[in-house]
Order: sequence, then structure tokens, then C-alpha cells
Amino acid sequence: MKNIRSTIVVLAITLASLTFARAQDPLPSWNDGPAKKSIVEFVAKVTKPGSPDFVPVPERIATFDNDGTLWCEQPMYFQLFFALDRVKVLAPQHPEWKTNEPFASLLKGDLKAALAGGNHAMGEIVMATHTGMTTAEFEQIVKDWIATAKHPKTGHLLTEMTYQPMHELLAYLRANGFKTFIVSGGGIEFMRPWTEQVYGIPPEQVVGSSVKTKYEMRDGKPVLVRLPEVNFIDDGPGKAVGINQHIGRRPIAAFGNSDGDQQMLEWTGAGSGARLMMLVHHDDAVREFKYGAESKIGTFSDALMAEAKEKKWTVISMKDDWKTIFVFENK
Amino acid sequence: MKNIRSTIVVLAITLASLTFARAQDPLPSWNDGPAKKSIVEFVAKVTKPGSPDFVPVPERIATFDNDGTLWCEQPMYFQLFFALDRVKVLAPQHPEWKTNEPFASLLKGDLKAALAGGNHAMGEIVMATHTGMTTAEFEQIVKDWIATAKHPKTGHLLTEMTYQPMHELLAYLRANGFKTFIVSGGGIEFMRPWTEQVYGIPPEQVVGSSVKTKYEMRDGKPVLVRLPEVNFIDDGPGKAVGINQHIGRRPIAAFGNSDGDQQMLEWTGAGSGARLMMLVHHDDAVREFKYGAESKIGTFSDALMAEAKEKKWTVISMKDDWKTIFVFENK
Repeated sequence: MKNIRSTIVVLAITLASLTFARAQDPLPSWNDGPAKKSIVEFVAKVTKPGSPDFVPVPERIATFDNDGTLWCEQPMYFQLFFALDRVKVLAPQHPEWKTNEPFASLLKGDLKAALAGGNHAMGEIVMATHTGMTTAEFEQIVKDWIATAKHPKTGHLLTEMTYQPMHELLAYLRANGFKTFIVSGGGIEFMRPWTEQVYGIPPEQVVGSSVKTKYEMRDGKPVLVRLPEVNFIDDGPGKAVGINQHIGRRPIAAFGNSDGDQQMLEWTGAGSGARLMMLVHHDDAVREFKYGAESKIGTFSDALMAEAKEKKWTVISMKDDWKTIFVFENK
Repeated sequence: MKNIRSTIVVLAITLASLTFARAQDPLPSWNDGPAKKSIVEFVAKVTKPGSPDFVPVPERIATFDNDGTLWCEQPMYFQLFFALDRVKVLAPQHPEWKTNEPFASLLKGDLKAALAGGNHAMGEIVMATHTGMTTAEFEQIVKDWIATAKHPKTGHLLTEMTYQPMHELLAYLRANGFKTFIVSGGGIEFMRPWTEQVYGIPPEQVVGSSVKTKYEMRDGKPVLVRLPEVNFIDDGPGKAVGINQHIGRRPIAAFGNSDGDQQMLEWTGAGSGARLMMLVHHDDAVREFKYGAESKIGTFSDALMAEAKEKKWTVISMKDDWKTIFVFENK
């Protein structure tokens, strides 16, 4: 009898502490492994007062790519879904699109033919759908669209195709005094209307590509009109430029997933003191998508992999490091 | 005896509460008057839960012009003092400056002749002194300069020629959940090295004019090189553009002092809900400088004054509203 009681007590204590440990884990969707370890060790180092690696709170800047790092980017960038949906909505106002490429192919549902024109065709589609309205109008268009936009393969809301482990990482860093920024090749005004609600990242902490805008008075009220002219491309070397322009200090942690993030990680890593550079590797064909060096979207070249190894950047295996992939899995 | 004791007690209580009231005043350098009243009433409104004018903390954005609003801008913009000092330092590397204008006149000490070339001459001076180095090098140059740079008239450090009432206003707003931003025509990278220490405004909350930068590898380390090419002029309509680009949401309070701030205040005022727009008027010839419509630096035109009246923007009289002007007066 006494033995049984002791056993029960021991069991209860063990269970309680297991539950406690689990509740305490700030990164429950990360499997124990080198990626999780590098995050936890880095945060411990830079937040420990008196440690040689201690970083004051105002300097705890972390930057995140969006497409392929915080949310899915397959079978194509989600912002392109937005552009294609807008082409359909705007088509009645543009009868010329019935014959003009790339719009004609798009409206016939032939995406491949439409995008055969490469960057030029893409640019035409983006400008036709992203400019000509005021910033306030564009914000509302994006808000309305993102509220219901679903993924063609999974049928889930795009905002639930965000990565659960990265949500936990964002929250964990913020709980440790970090300011978290998005630094994405995507449109800055395409992201801002929803990043605060979805990621907890306010508009002023979103850096992205942009078009020029023009201040105008309309009926005695000022508006900013979005012009069909590129202002800034926040990709590749542009990410370092954008970080300097918007944030004005060097991040101590940076997270990406493709060649477009190379310079952001280099720029982050070139500072003195403890640094954390991580690259998400899309290697899970079953739960997400498997792509890398050969992919046109989110290219993770062999050169980037070699640089990551040489510079001791941490490569996150979605397959091995992530217990859960998408936010919707927990719903 | 009893009467005396009572009187002493009453006096003590009165003095204590006066001291208490004074210690509680978050804006001690502001005289009681319409300017101070409009600030206090606005903050009370937007921070009171349940009030129809309540604004959630993340949306409490306040933007401040710098030259003439947070610090003095006479007898010329302080950034020009920086440029002129740099011309002297760099002259030995530029023998051609001995004969080429505007540098030749500058080096002879004839500022008036040098600036006779107007914006073109100014542009040449700025580009020659602000570009060609890396961002890190420029940051260090500014830091070294601002640590000792003094005002030609008062002999005080330029960082102590900042306005005491505006320091109190910045702190008061932040204590009430506001995020405070600088939105200045001045160089973004000229301000960022010192705004955190001087104003409590971190680099990522500074918006200003900028030159283009280029990502380069030097000895295996990435640098950003400052190019002699304008990227953005954050003045006039550019202030609304810059606010949208950097902050991505409309301020609910904006503070300026000249025609260059007109569109920032219009843009701020065009939002719905409670708003506070204020313009510092330099009307104190004794304690600071008296200038306005006729001044080339910090022009406060009659048209702006008329617009302020029509739109109920608050004009701050430095003479009447400010008990103390400069930070150095309290040292």
C-alpha cells in the first residue's frame, strides 16, 4: 500500500513537472535539435546582464523575410494571387486586356502563357493592379482581399498558411526585448494592412518594396496617390539598403529562406558581438513543399548553402526541426 | 498659540500641495495658456478608456520636425555648420577647391559668396561632404562632430540648443503611450547618430532626407557606400510621403514650425478622430530668434498662418508659451 502511494506521488510529481516544462517551453512547435538550440542559446547570451554578449534592449533588432520564411510562397508568391484576382475584378474597366498580353492569357486562365513574358509581364500585372489608387483605397482593397483569400491547394486562409514555429519565435524574441521587423521583397503596402493582426508586427516595422506616391489635394482633403513607378526593390542587396534606410541600425538576428536574403544575413553577421542568422529550408514535400536550388520561387542555391556552412548560419530543416508547420494545424 | 500653530499647519499643507502640483506638472517649462492647454486636453482625450476620442496605444503616433521645432535653426541649419566644417577638414585632399566655387569662397571664409549659387551650390557642398564614405564611417564622423560642435552665437553645444519645452512634450507623450518620430528635411543619417541620446528617439523612428547607398563587399565584409545621388527629400509634400513610407500609418499629432511642415500637418489633420497639430512660432528676439514670413530659413508664411487659423492648428508663441527655451538654461 505504501509503495503504491509513493509510486503515485512520484508519478504525479513527474507528470506535473513535465506539464510545467511543456507550458514553459516558448517554442513548443520546434523539435529539440540544433536549430532550436541555437535560438535558445543566442537569446540567453544576449539577454544575460553582465554577459560579454549582452545586448541592450534598444539594440535587439531582429529582421524576418516574409515569403517562405513567415508564410508559404508556393505554388507562387501570395501577392501574385492578389494581383491575378485584381486583374479579374478590374477587367470590365479594361476592354483592351481582352487582346493585350499578359492580360489576355491571364483572363483565359492560362497563367503559364501570361508569365512567359517574365519580369516584364510580371511588372505590367503588378503596376496595373497595385497603382492608380490612393494609399487608403489600396489598404482597403488588400484588407478585404486578405480576409477571405484562400490557398488553391489546401483551401486554408492564406493568413493561416503562416508558420506556427515562426509565430512562436517572433513572440519569444519579443518577450525577450527584441523589436521584430519584416524585411521582404513583397510590397510594403501589401503587407502592412495585416501584419499587425497576423504576426504582431506593426506597420512601422515592415520594410518592403514600394512604388512612388504623390501628395495631392482632392476635394480639400490630402491623399497619396500610388504611381506606376518603382520606388524601391527590397530584395537581395536591397535588403541591406532597406534595413539601413528604415531601421538605421544593424540587426543582431536575421531570418530568411532564399538567395534574396543572402545580403540581409551577411549584413547582420558583419556586426560585432553575438549574432544569429538562420535560413528556413523547404525540405518537407509531405507537410509543405520541397524546393531549393532548382526553384524559380524562393531559390535556395548551392552557393547560399555553402555560404551558410562557411559562416555558420543555421539552416532550419522544416522536416526535422518543425513539429507543426502551419498555424491552421492547431485550429 | 493655537492660531499660529493652525496657520503653520495650513501653510505647510499648502506648500506641500504646491510642491506636489509642481512635481506633477509634466510640462513645467510651458506657461499656462492655450498651447499647453491644447496639449493636455488632447492627451487626456485620446488616453481615456471609453472616451469617444480614445486611441489604442499602437495608433498613438506623434511626428516632430527637427530644425526649428526640436532645436534651433538660426543663423542657419546646423547641418550646414557640419558641412562647412567638413569642407575645411577635407580641403587638403581637394586642391581644386582653392579655385572652384562654391568651395573657394567657403575656404576664404566668405559664406555669403559661397551660398550665392543657391540650391546648386548647397547641393555641391552637401554631396562633397556627405557622400563617398560608408554609412559606418559617416556615422562616426557625425558622432565625433556633434560631441563638440558649438553654436557660433551662444557658444553652447548644439545638442543643448534643443528646446526644453519640446523635450518635456516628447517625454509626456511617451509616458502616455505615444511613439514619437522625427520627420525632418534634415539628413536621416545626420540625425540618427545622436537623436536617441538627445531626444530619446531611436534611429528607426527618424525619417529624413537621404542619399542612395550601395551594398559592396570590401575585404570580405559588407559595407553600404553613400552615393552622391539624392534618394529622397523629406520636406513639404515629401513629409507626408515619408511618413507613409516609413511609419505606414497616419500620425494623430504633428509638430512643426515652417512651410516645410504644412503637408505633414494637413496629412495628420485629415484623419478621423481627435488630432493635435501645432506650429512653433519664433517670435522671441531676446531669448532666441525672431523670424517668420520673411526668413529664408524656417519660412513661416502668411499663408501657413492663415491655414493654421482656419484649421484650428495651435500656434505656439515661444515668447508667451515657453518659460524656458533652451536645455542649456537649466544646466
